[in-house]
Amino acid sequence: MTGRPWNGRRLPVALLGATGSVGQRFVALLADHPWFEIVALCASDRSAGRLYAESARWLQTSPLPASAASMRVLPADPARLPDCPLVFSALDAAVAGEIESAFAGDGRLVVSNSRNHRLEPAVPLVVPEVNADHLELIEVQRRDNPSGGAIVTNPNCSTIGLVLALKPLQDAFGLRAANVVTLQAVSGAGLPGIPSFEILDNVVPHIAGEEEKLEVETGKILGRLGERAIERCPIVISAQCNRVPVIDGHTLCVSVGLEREAAPAAVRDALESFRGEPQALGLPSAPARPVHFLDAPSGPQPRLHRDNDRGMAATVGRLRPCPLLDYKFVVLSHNTLRGAAGGALLLAELVAARGFVPGVEALDRFTPRVG
Amino acid sequence: MTGRPWNGRRLPVALLGATGSVGQRFVALLADHPWFEIVALCASDRSAGRLYAESARWLQTSPLPASAASMRVLPADPARLPDCPLVFSALDAAVAGEIESAFAGDGRLVVSNSRNHRLEPAVPLVVPEVNADHLELIEVQRRDNPSGGAIVTNPNCSTIGLVLALKPLQDAFGLRAANVVTLQAVSGAGLPGIPSFEILDNVVPHIAGEEEKLEVETGKILGRLGERAIERCPIVISAQCNRVPVIDGHTLCVSVGLEREAAPAAVRDALESFRGEPQALGLPSAPARPVHFLDAPSGPQPRLHRDNDRGMAATVGRLRPCPLLDYKFVVLSHNTLRGAAGGALLLAELVAARGFVPGVEALDRFTPRVG
Amino acid sequence: MTGRPWNGRRLPVALLGATGSVGQRFVALLADHPWFEIVALCASDRSAGRLYAESARWLQTSPLPASAASMRVLPADPARLPDCPLVFSALDAAVAGEIESAFAGDGRLVVSNSRNHRLEPAVPLVVPEVNADHLELIEVQRRDNPSGGAIVTNPNCSTIGLVLALKPLQDAFGLRAANVVTLQAVSGAGLPGIPSFEILDNVVPHIAGEEEKLEVETGKILGRLGERAIERCPIVISAQCNRVPVIDGHTLCVSVGLEREAAPAAVRDALESFRGEPQALGLPSAPARPVHFLDAPSGPQPRLHRDNDRGMAATVGRLRPCPLLDYKFVVLSHNTLRGAAGGALLLAELVAARGFVPGVEALDRFTPRVG
Amino acid sequence: MTGRPWNGRRLPVALLGATGSVGQRFVALLADHPWFEIVALCASDRSAGRLYAESARWLQTSPLPASAASMRVLPADPARLPDCPLVFSALDAAVAGEIESAFAGDGRLVVSNSRNHRLEPAVPLVVPEVNADHLELIEVQRRDNPSGGAIVTNPNCSTIGLVLALKPLQDAFGLRAANVVTLQAVSGAGLPGIPSFEILDNVVPHIAGEEEKLEVETGKILGRLGERAIERCPIVISAQCNRVPVIDGHTLCVSVGLEREAAPAAVRDALESFRGEPQALGLPSAPARPVHFLDAPSGPQPRLHRDNDRGMAATVGRLRPCPLLDYKFVVLSHNTLRGAAGGALLLAELVAARGFVPGVEALDRFTPRVG
Repeated sequence: MTGRPWNGRRLPVALLGATGSVGQRFVALLADHPWFEIVALCASDRSAGRLYAESARWLQTSPLPASAASMRVLPADPARLPDCPLVFSALDAAVAGEIESAFAGDGRLVVSNSRNHRLEPAVPLVVPEVNADHLELIEVQRRDNPSGGAIVTNPNCSTIGLVLALKPLQDAFGLRAANVVTLQAVSGAGLPGIPSFEILDNVVPHIAGEEEKLEVETGKILGRLGERAIERCPIVISAQCNRVPVIDGHTLCVSVGLEREAAPAAVRDALESFRGEPQALGLPSAPARPVHFLDAPSGPQPRLHRDNDRGMAATVGRLRPCPLLDYKFVVLSHNTLRGAAGGALLLAELVAARGFVPGVEALDRFTPRVG
Repeated sequence: MTGRPWNGRRLPVALLGATGSVGQRFVALLADHPWFEIVALCASDRSAGRLYAESARWLQTSPLPASAASMRVLPADPARLPDCPLVFSALDAAVAGEIESAFAGDGRLVVSNSRNHRLEPAVPLVVPEVNADHLELIEVQRRDNPSGGAIVTNPNCSTIGLVLALKPLQDAFGLRAANVVTLQAVSGAGLPGIPSFEILDNVVPHIAGEEEKLEVETGKILGRLGERAIERCPIVISAQCNRVPVIDGHTLCVSVGLEREAAPAAVRDALESFRGEPQALGLPSAPARPVHFLDAPSGPQPRLHRDNDRGMAATVGRLRPCPLLDYKFVVLSHNTLRGAAGGALLLAELVAARGFVPGVEALDRFTPRVG
Repeated sequence: MTGRPWNGRRLPVALLGATGSVGQRFVALLADHPWFEIVALCASDRSAGRLYAESARWLQTSPLPASAASMRVLPADPARLPDCPLVFSALDAAVAGEIESAFAGDGRLVVSNSRNHRLEPAVPLVVPEVNADHLELIEVQRRDNPSGGAIVTNPNCSTIGLVLALKPLQDAFGLRAANVVTLQAVSGAGLPGIPSFEILDNVVPHIAGEEEKLEVETGKILGRLGERAIERCPIVISAQCNRVPVIDGHTLCVSVGLEREAAPAAVRDALESFRGEPQALGLPSAPARPVHFLDAPSGPQPRLHRDNDRGMAATVGRLRPCPLLDYKFVVLSHNTLRGAAGGALLLAELVAARGFVPGVEALDRFTPRVG
Repeated sequence: MTGRPWNGRRLPVALLGATGSVGQRFVALLADHPWFEIVALCASDRSAGRLYAESARWLQTSPLPASAASMRVLPADPARLPDCPLVFSALDAAVAGEIESAFAGDGRLVVSNSRNHRLEPAVPLVVPEVNADHLELIEVQRRDNPSGGAIVTNPNCSTIGLVLALKPLQDAFGLRAANVVTLQAVSGAGLPGIPSFEILDNVVPHIAGEEEKLEVETGKILGRLGERAIERCPIVISAQCNRVPVIDGHTLCVSVGLEREAAPAAVRDALESFRGEPQALGLPSAPARPVHFLDAPSGPQPRLHRDNDRGMAATVGRLRPCPLLDYKFVVLSHNTLRGAAGGALLLAELVAARGFVPGVEALDRFTPRVG
């Protein structure tokens, strides 16, 4: 499935919230995407009508793609949008709820990175390697939405790394409980985000709403697909979240309690051999391995390992027995790649390949990529 | 007990490991100490014979005290030392074991910040507010040491903050278990310590030996004084330790399981009302309150709160129920003040006031300081 | 002049812009001030009416003074202000111009840290050790302001360190030219200031308007008092300004061209022996020495030396010949203490002592403080 | 000249100082190099005999190449080395002098990143775009070295960025003088380098020997090739060097005095249109453009622009008139890529292409790469 499906035609896509921090990551990732082509960059009314190059203060380390630079920013209004069935949302939570609903009501398949709709019963909250089957909920949404539009969501940036590490353990040994303490990068707060005066030579041991998201979203993602909703996984989770002076990459110190006994080698093997649907399908943004197991005394570290597998892998290290639960380990993942724009892009690839995008046929003859 | 006891005479003290990071903190703290007066600064043979101002690369934010600057550094050899019964050790663990034993064998009361002797059965490992009674073990040491010398030790820098927060909970509700994840400052690694290339824009999720120290030392400090040794507290502790780009101040994310049920207000009250022997005695380096309870959404933070009560208090905040154990909270303490030089100095004050220093009478007529 | 002049009564003062970064520094510094007493904290209409403790997110390392915490914030309107002839302004430049004029028009002596009025011909721009005589311009203002009010200003935070180092050289050898490259702390940008995502692991080689301020303000401060205005010093200045990931303390790399030949020892001596009117008068906030000369190979450094003389001294080091001009050296000063709130406070002390505050008699019988 | 010259055979090369910071960069860059193949990794006697994976603590963000990981480290002794005429040196200056001479005396062409031989009259100090003609000095060396070996050197990491920006100005307008203030990344100090305790929340305004290197090396590189040595360029340079808390990327604030008048557009054009021999030859490591001119208000910035053109370009921005000299601007270059391993690699490519490597024919039929 390298190269371009759909007879070589790229699907036209729109991006909501294009000028923000995550929006910029989307623009960078979509610049040369083999399947998708940006046809509309939408932002607040303040930016609408201006060139993208002028309305976004570009803060990526790769240059602003010329094709995006010269696009004129549109307002986030489905009536103003060119014909494109797939829409990415990097909107701020303050406005995402209504706008995303409007686009879904207008027949678009919205892949959202915002938190607003994540916990609605009929909205899939999906990490493609973990719970691709939850996408079936799209059909539940469509029962009430004659336009054929729908919303699918990407979890919170710290949740993604956690569930990538927990899923193989759930499958192999069952999960009872997890304690998670995060050390989160400043890019997770968006722009302007946290003032430098508050984080240099400092730690802020609080991120509004983050602990709740980790505790609640994890249960939904690891849950079982029911008739009209997800049956939450009964795992007990306790989270403490900290902001640290790191640019990119969330580090999680995790302790897990398993349902069945497991030898250290078996735990490691479960993590290392874990593969999911994106790997089976060879989706363009799929990491070769969703979990990299690091056999080194003092890793993973955000600066050294956040870009593993193009920033799309979670790296797990320091696996050892836990005196309190069963095992403890450290998980690292890139919060604006795997944890935001990259994760949503992978989800969109899955959604498109599965045929959930209105008017776009499923790709059923895959040539799996060799990882 | 403000002013000077012992008829106004200050006790002559020596300092081993005077040029290192913790050694410099000792020099700064002892400069105007009402009870103690430095009469000897000892360091490695490489430094011996040189002026202190020339052999220590001074990295404190207060100026190098003139009295110390002009002292000539001595080798760490008891035979070369002037008459002083009390000796502070800030020696590197690579050499501390033997040297401290030599000084104790020579009749000195050694107050050590090094880890080497901490776990020996007859060596008190003391946080003055928590287990002042453990000093009785000094008598056990003296049964085998006719010189009258002895060793008392200060715990590891991250352990001190933890036990200051745990002790009031142990007293009020009993302790079953604790999960601790640390975010530790770079000054804890001494000098040269961790290279800047490894910690800027980064977290290192490993500190050699630190997790073991936290798990083991805590059990000893919270234990019960037995006949010839400490009966360890049976609390189960699981620790994960991280180095973060912070200059001073260790932040601990703690979850605790209690033996008896406790309402949030009772837990808070136990922490806020906690006082120990240093407060009762009014020791010169005692904080007014060993635990500061912070009623704010996003603290404690190292840069803002490490200097609370002259860096001698632990600040506790974000107290809330834990889905897994009973309560979770954040503890912050200054690792080179309360967690090293300041803590050892407070311990020495306690040791001196209690009459454990050879040839120095106990101070039994205290005028407790008003905090 | 220790203790309190004016028969022990403290002068009532108001503070405009009390909730911002510099405003908070003022509140901390004025908490125990021997001469001044805050009677009004003013801020934006959004804050007015609320308790100061609730409207300011306190980010100082010292605790919020209880007296300020419980004050109710007032709007920045002279008609609403209690009787106080002296007003500090830490207002944002977006609003400072008009508000300060309104207070001056209402008979108040405004000591401003904002840039708006600095370059007006009749407004003194004063560093107390450097150009105390420029305060005579207050009389020029009063010719047009029958209320008796006036505005005096404190220079830009990076200018202050520069002129403290240049003034003794001007006096001793004359000044032809200076090249200045700054490395400025993030606190200089106020709150929220520069986002952490833009400064971690980074340098931003641009600060809007800063280079112009350095070039222009320096010429005015070092200039000569004329009849109705300042005759600018003809020194040629070229400045380049950078923001660096430092909390507090601006570092300046300076090269100077002198009018007369000067031996290195003479240059050093000029810097070390420099004293000004604040030292002569023993003003409460005056540093013992306005310039600390550092005889060390690798200083001054912001973290180690910004708090010299309670943050009120400029520290100069690395004096050496310059192949291009005559000498080069490094100057460090604390940008929110000496460079903002502390500098303005010292200026207010000078203004009050000199009798420029309406209704407050000059202090002509000084008992100079021993430095 | 894409693909492999010399009939597709890669030249065997050795690397001295392979385990250090710059050594690791060499290993990463040489992993897939089209012309060169590492056949020997040499390091101190302590490492010799061990696997490279075990003796180097790998701190690059790209994974350790498998081919290097499994090589056994050799001592830095020419007699122990396999047959390879080209040798890279990333040795510490403490030992580089003698070892490099020994390899040159043994018939090897040594491309060195160390400072030891840079200023010797017969040793070329070369930035390939700037002074490729200086390589003729190799013949001068060979008059005294019958083995046919020779040493060529790469300048100091901060000098490279400076001369890349100065050379086009020298060519177009002549150079009188330059003032340079650097803000240098911590990776420039190697490993362990500067302790984190000394650079977090800090600036160190001194780097031993760095200012002299900038002043002296620049004159040699911009000089004219004479009979047996370089005639130094008479430009007057004054440098001040600072270490800042940045991982990679040296920022230079430069003011220049030109010999001939130049309009701003002409200066910009000279910088933008600058190309050198590496671009003409299409050398594998050559940047498309050695100088990137940035037309943005607040750049270049190390985190955003250090990787421009794979870290091999200098980025110049903020060009504006200088009140003191003629123009001022900011230059940024990656100190361990362009400024060390990458620059030395480009130099080796030039040396090989020109036929200076013993036994390797010059590449005279180039197919210039399209930039």
